[in-house]
Amino acid sequence: MLEKMDLSKRMEKETYKEKITSLQAELGRLQRECKELKIPVMIAFEGFDAAGKGLQIGELLQALDPRGFEVHAVKQETEEEKMYPFLWRFWTKIPEKGRIAIYDTSWYRRVLVERFEKKMSEKQLAEAFSSICSFEQQLTDDGMVLVKLFLCIDQKEQKKRLKKLLKNKETAWRVTEADWKRNKDFSKYRAINEEMLKKTDTDYAPWMLIEATDRRFATVKIYTAVIQMMKRAVERAKAPEQSVKQKNAIAYDKDLQSSILSKADLSLSYTKEEYKEKLRKLQDKIEKLHGELYRRRIPVVLGFEGWDAGGKGGAIKRLTQKMDPRGYVVHPTASPNDIEKAHHYLWRFWQAMPKAGHVTIFDRTWYGRVMVERIEGFCSTEEWQRAYKEINDMENDLVNAGAIVIKFWLQIDKDEQERRFTERQQNPEKQWKITDEDWRNREKWDQYEEAVNEMLIRTSTPEAPWVVVEGNNKYYARIKVLETVVKAIEERLK
Amino acid sequence: MLEKMDLSKRMEKETYKEKITSLQAELGRLQRECKELKIPVMIAFEGFDAAGKGLQIGELLQALDPRGFEVHAVKQETEEEKMYPFLWRFWTKIPEKGRIAIYDTSWYRRVLVERFEKKMSEKQLAEAFSSICSFEQQLTDDGMVLVKLFLCIDQKEQKKRLKKLLKNKETAWRVTEADWKRNKDFSKYRAINEEMLKKTDTDYAPWMLIEATDRRFATVKIYTAVIQMMKRAVERAKAPEQSVKQKNAIAYDKDLQSSILSKADLSLSYTKEEYKEKLRKLQDKIEKLHGELYRRRIPVVLGFEGWDAGGKGGAIKRLTQKMDPRGYVVHPTASPNDIEKAHHYLWRFWQAMPKAGHVTIFDRTWYGRVMVERIEGFCSTEEWQRAYKEINDMENDLVNAGAIVIKFWLQIDKDEQERRFTERQQNPEKQWKITDEDWRNREKWDQYEEAVNEMLIRTSTPEAPWVVVEGNNKYYARIKVLETVVKAIEERLK
Repeated sequence: MLEKMDLSKRMEKETYKEKITSLQAELGRLQRECKELKIPVMIAFEGFDAAGKGLQIGELLQALDPRGFEVHAVKQETEEEKMYPFLWRFWTKIPEKGRIAIYDTSWYRRVLVERFEKKMSEKQLAEAFSSICSFEQQLTDDGMVLVKLFLCIDQKEQKKRLKKLLKNKETAWRVTEADWKRNKDFSKYRAINEEMLKKTDTDYAPWMLIEATDRRFATVKIYTAVIQMMKRAVERAKAPEQSVKQKNAIAYDKDLQSSILSKADLSLSYTKEEYKEKLRKLQDKIEKLHGELYRRRIPVVLGFEGWDAGGKGGAIKRLTQKMDPRGYVVHPTASPNDIEKAHHYLWRFWQAMPKAGHVTIFDRTWYGRVMVERIEGFCSTEEWQRAYKEINDMENDLVNAGAIVIKFWLQIDKDEQERRFTERQQNPEKQWKITDEDWRNREKWDQYEEAVNEMLIRTSTPEAPWVVVEGNNKYYARIKVLETVVKAIEERLK
Repeated sequence: MLEKMDLSKRMEKETYKEKITSLQAELGRLQRECKELKIPVMIAFEGFDAAGKGLQIGELLQALDPRGFEVHAVKQETEEEKMYPFLWRFWTKIPEKGRIAIYDTSWYRRVLVERFEKKMSEKQLAEAFSSICSFEQQLTDDGMVLVKLFLCIDQKEQKKRLKKLLKNKETAWRVTEADWKRNKDFSKYRAINEEMLKKTDTDYAPWMLIEATDRRFATVKIYTAVIQMMKRAVERAKAPEQSVKQKNAIAYDKDLQSSILSKADLSLSYTKEEYKEKLRKLQDKIEKLHGELYRRRIPVVLGFEGWDAGGKGGAIKRLTQKMDPRGYVVHPTASPNDIEKAHHYLWRFWQAMPKAGHVTIFDRTWYGRVMVERIEGFCSTEEWQRAYKEINDMENDLVNAGAIVIKFWLQIDKDEQERRFTERQQNPEKQWKITDEDWRNREKWDQYEEAVNEMLIRTSTPEAPWVVVEGNNKYYARIKVLETVVKAIEERLK
């Protein structure tokens, strides 16, 4: 989830000032409403060292009535606390109904800092995750609003901040050996955080990822997340006659949204000569690797998504051109038929999964649930929100069974799409490729962009990553797909 | 869960005939309703070998329209199936909406037979449990009715049945090496089943335990369980305006209920001399063990529940008489006060848990949730149904932190209770012990008995067992409590 974040996000001082005043007023109002409705709220701050957790908690408190909240700074367990189950100190510190408790790091310490520092057996780790999920489910089942914020900065920014803290006498004491160690082993510690996020990003207690390089940006995003979580609890408490399960989605302003797609450098390209040369080499490689996969009985699942006319078909064609057709299947995904509709939405994809040694390439995938079904209202809010975890769980089952799983998003910009649509319409041989629906979907570009960004964040994991393919230049896109697949297979065969 | 089952349950032929006709009619009707309402149903048969799964499936099919169901006999994975994630063969075999699928053993094979036969790492096992829970949650979230039946017989009965099968040429082939191995290592295989039941007994897919020594009894109980699960799905589909989360409880006829309490032999007793002699020795022992617990930093949690006037106070007094008062606390549990009511119901018990090396004795416990709160309607059906897992999870956290956890149920019969109530009323020094509420609770004896039986089954685990104490004779009861505690501590200190 983390590597997809755009940590260059900033907010101008003027925009900040404009927004923060009304956000503070709204949070204050919501605190009073929650008190009245006896809704308890827990806000957990996690994230990398020096990401600004303390400072952001201070910002958040600006808006709150001090009689109604408590802040818990969570340190290493005391000798006393070590004598209890690790969740004991959190169970005993849950807020009373109507109050807000804020945690400066939280019950996740166990599976983050403590895991990083100590040896922990696989069994203990599995038990800790299971206890944490049970803790959160029990509390939210009982009506707790649980806001989990993850503040993200990169290794370089972290180093800069730690150094700055060191320079100042007043703050130097805050920088510990352990902080430096985590900065040095940043990628190891990040992997631990990635795994934690994947295992605990549930529909009842989802993670809110906060780009924290710019403090103003982070403050506004944190306020927005907290406000929306509290708001939906208040609305549900006021309208219990509505379906209990229906939840509002968390929606950020355009400028607070994740911006993975807009980061893609669409100017990347190859000349025809470069393309031909690379293509030949990569196709030869993949032909050999494909045989090796078969002998080693490794299954491969490749998913292709992207804008209409993004170039999925062309990329799949180049990928498979020299592969032995007995060892792969391309599975095109259309709207579900009647039989498929009469089953769980993942059923038809389970049917199509490759057996060991085989490759299945999905032209559109199960991610339709969190794109078209979300946007067109073919499923409920609750259903698509739940789907991130359902999909992660399914891919996890595949990975545990030994599969290589990669998902490609073919990215083009809106102008390029229009160019391609028009070209298709004018070319008699390509006319079949373009329908009215394509034009209609195009009108919903912004909605799709938001949904895709959220999907990429919530379902990209180290074991089953999303790869955004810069697709304005078809040559570049096809080579990137082939290169990615070749690299992933080579890594596995090592 | 299993060791508490009364496997001597039987049903007379006449009673059976009378019941089965109407049950079959009702199941047929429900099948048609589910078809109409497009509700899919999965019925999984698990349990010990030769418990009669095949036969009982045959009985169940009697009532069903063959055009609406399918039966899957789940064997060892084929070479083909081994090439997929282990849940693949079940994902691809889920029934269409409106149809019923019956599984003769199921996706639990992985964590039962396969675990018993093969070495599996702790990590693989944890992943299998997590995949199974996710599978079941995804399906039930999507509207699947999931009935999980566990057919239970004991080792002796199993041996008898296997031998009988062997004798007959027609059936001898059905008895395999593996069956005999599981019969020989029955207690090991049972422990594997216990762990499975504990980890997968969820509110969305609870286990139905079926005493299967007597085939007629089992058939009627299975029909009843299936009917009630389908019925509540039909009712919820018909009345969606009611709270989605509110579920009807599964209720069995009096004669189908678990009968743990009625099995207790209340004639057990000691003479005063026997009592005094044993008491002295046990109290000396516990004094020493208590010190050892402190040095070894082992926490102990003892919960006392039982009928009013069951003798909890007296037993606790004898237990603690010679213990160092700095090392234990007796925690009496009354109705929650306002602060406690403003928190999750388990919060106040977490507060009181012992630290390492200490003993906490609870006089009444968190089990109030599934007894008085259930019966008096102080919480919703959904809430007390969810509580079995919540409580198991909490006790599991304690056990994982190294605690000894034992729960005592002090059992007396209704006559003995009346005798004690009357005695209390007539004795001026004991009058404070008896209130009108005690008499009112007594009127609900049968309801309590049902709730207690269910509680004992669903929350007795090898790591945190329930011990039913035969309490008509106070001497006997006190000695049994002391003996149990001494034995558990000695086991741990080994």
